Amino acid sequence: MAAAALVTENFKFVSLFFKSKDVMIFNGLIALGTVAGQTAYNVFAFHCPCSPGRNYRYGLAAIGVPALAFFLVGIMMNKNTWDLVSECRLRNCRKLSGAAAFALHGTIIGRAVVAPLTWVVISLLQGQAYTCALSEFVNSSTLVGFPRDQGSEVMAKFPCKNGVPTEVQVFWPEIERQLKYESQLIGWLLVAGTSLAVFLMLCMKRCSSPLGYLQEDYWSEYRSSEKALFQRTAAVHARLLAADNIKSFFGFVALDKEEKEQAAEYQTAT
Amino acid sequence: MAAAALVTENFKFVSLFFKSKDVMIFNGLIALGTVAGQTAYNVFAFHCPCSPGRNYRYGLAAIGVPALAFFLVGIMMNKNTWDLVSECRLRNCRKLSGAAAFALHGTIIGRAVVAPLTWVVISLLQGQAYTCALSEFVNSSTLVGFPRDQGSEVMAKFPCKNGVPTEVQVFWPEIERQLKYESQLIGWLLVAGTSLAVFLMLCMKRCSSPLGYLQEDYWSEYRSSEKALFQRTAAVHARLLAADNIKSFFGFVALDKEEKEQAAEYQTAT
Amino acid sequence: MAAAALVTENFKFVSLFFKSKDVMIFNGLIALGTVAGQTAYNVFAFHCPCSPGRNYRYGLAAIGVPALAFFLVGIMMNKNTWDLVSECRLRNCRKLSGAAAFALHGTIIGRAVVAPLTWVVISLLQGQAYTCALSEFVNSSTLVGFPRDQGSEVMAKFPCKNGVPTEVQVFWPEIERQLKYESQLIGWLLVAGTSLAVFLMLCMKRCSSPLGYLQEDYWSEYRSSEKALFQRTAAVHARLLAADNIKSFFGFVALDKEEKEQAAEYQTAT
Repeated sequence: MAAAALVTENFKFVSLFFKSKDVMIFNGLIALGTVAGQTAYNVFAFHCPCSPGRNYRYGLAAIGVPALAFFLVGIMMNKNTWDLVSECRLRNCRKLSGAAAFALHGTIIGRAVVAPLTWVVISLLQGQAYTCALSEFVNSSTLVGFPRDQGSEVMAKFPCKNGVPTEVQVFWPEIERQLKYESQLIGWLLVAGTSLAVFLMLCMKRCSSPLGYLQEDYWSEYRSSEKALFQRTAAVHARLLAADNIKSFFGFVALDKEEKEQAAEYQTAT
Repeated sequence: MAAAALVTENFKFVSLFFKSKDVMIFNGLIALGTVAGQTAYNVFAFHCPCSPGRNYRYGLAAIGVPALAFFLVGIMMNKNTWDLVSECRLRNCRKLSGAAAFALHGTIIGRAVVAPLTWVVISLLQGQAYTCALSEFVNSSTLVGFPRDQGSEVMAKFPCKNGVPTEVQVFWPEIERQLKYESQLIGWLLVAGTSLAVFLMLCMKRCSSPLGYLQEDYWSEYRSSEKALFQRTAAVHARLLAADNIKSFFGFVALDKEEKEQAAEYQTAT
Repeated sequence: MAAAALVTENFKFVSLFFKSKDVMIFNGLIALGTVAGQTAYNVFAFHCPCSPGRNYRYGLAAIGVPALAFFLVGIMMNKNTWDLVSECRLRNCRKLSGAAAFALHGTIIGRAVVAPLTWVVISLLQGQAYTCALSEFVNSSTLVGFPRDQGSEVMAKFPCKNGVPTEVQVFWPEIERQLKYESQLIGWLLVAGTSLAVFLMLCMKRCSSPLGYLQEDYWSEYRSSEKALFQRTAAVHARLLAADNIKSFFGFVALDKEEKEQAAEYQTAT
């Protein structure tokens, strides 16, 4: 009962967010979904092959392929991408100044990068994929007392814990600590770097804008009003045009009450 | 009580999605349903036969047959397929240019391929079917210390864990790791390839379209309005025609209130 | 309370589907119900008799009898069957061309075959009935080391696990794997064959129809309108005729309010 109440509550939360159209929160939801997906994957599907050469490719695929897929989906689902494409194709980008192109590309890539970056950071902070991928490249000469005749063959077998000769098994905790340290450090540095980059970008955007704070608020209000009114009017226009064409085919058209009112109101204008 | 509330809530959510006609979300639901089905199947029905020759056929059937069935259902349930068929039969495809035919085939196949591809990817990431199918083809000469007199007969028995001589049972973890690595790598490469292919197709589609972004929005709005009005008007037309025919048979026709209004309104037009 | 809400919700869903007249979804619901029934049956009722001769008959009955019953119910509940029967009796099938007869028979048999086929496929994928039915026919000479003096008597006892001599009990896992493999492979081949057959039939039907896609939509709309209006008008006509006859016997007739209105409205027309 508790789990169900929790899910129901979260569900209401999610639908509320989708209605508010706030990009920041939307990105947060993408990030959250990615976390859930990452966890789900790790529960049922990460099996290190423990073989030199394969480890590296497997770890890279497990981190890189979902990140690539998230990135491409993020670019494809952004309306600005197709705005830019159609603008450039129809008018050869003549109306697009350098600063505007930079801002547009920044917005598109910035929004598409949220999910893959979250995936990579979570993967690195968990450290499983990194440990598997890089265990074969650990330099055995840095370990005191490690047998000189054992090579990367044995190193690659460490993440699976069997198949390793018993006399070198004592070295695994140290190697694992070292690899997890590197993995998590890279993850934290990525978080820090991203935070700083986002902060600087936002500062630059505000500083280079010719508008003040209230003026930008007004401008964003105007844009959202224009968009909503444009869509609503285009929908009514399309419906009246469709009604005319259907009438010329059947001799009459079955409009409902609301549509009849619209037709009576706007027919003279079209 | 909680479970019921949860199901009800999700049900509303699903019907909301179905009403929004968003193909992306619809495809997502198909993919999700396929995941659920795949899981259900694996829980109650995957039993590796552990016999050379049979393993291969069984694994192939367990991955391939549902994928084939999903693909055919996807093609059959798409209205565009039958649009294309009737168009070509009635007018010998004269009105269909090469680009339009390519776009239509792409849409039909693209939508039908979502469910089978999801099935195959999930099967490969889980690795059970691949491990069963290919265990007999593992080359025993790549395993250090494996007895030379044991052939594919023993290799095929590995996925069941009994019937294998105890002296070679230690080799199973390594073989399983290798097979799961291959299975999951193929699965990830499939995901990466599909993402790239979808992205390139969408780019090509947008770049070759003669319409801008807002024009395509208007065009899709017009098409959905026209479709809805055409269906509604055709239904009213069919009902009036049926009423006329019934009247000439019985001498009168028992219309309800709404139908009488429709008859009074549109009778003069037909 | 929760269960009731859940059932009510699902019931609305089901009735929505039934109203939409979509045969595809209707067939899907039949298949789903059959799955539920099959699962229910296996949980509480499958007990292999484990005796030569009886095994085969029991397994065949458990698969075949419900399939036969579903098939007959499906044929009986289809109105087209009785349409065809009365047509042929009254006019000796003179008005029925070869193509129309083939199409009608195809529709009736095709819809009646959905439930039994689902039953058989689920039975074969679970493999329980097949394992019980065919265990006595396993050729003991294919098993290495199986005692030559043990015949089908022992083979038939295997599915129950008791009554089998301990020295041959080790052979059961291999026999079971083999039988389940055969059962599931036949099940998957049945699924693949059915998918292909349905696809080809649908293609043929669409290609041989003289109507385009939208014309078929209009035609099916007209047929359902005509059917509904015919039934309603025939009911009113029968009631008015009955009222007339009662009136000529008693001198008056006790109609309720709605019937009086109908009589006043349509009396002049009859």
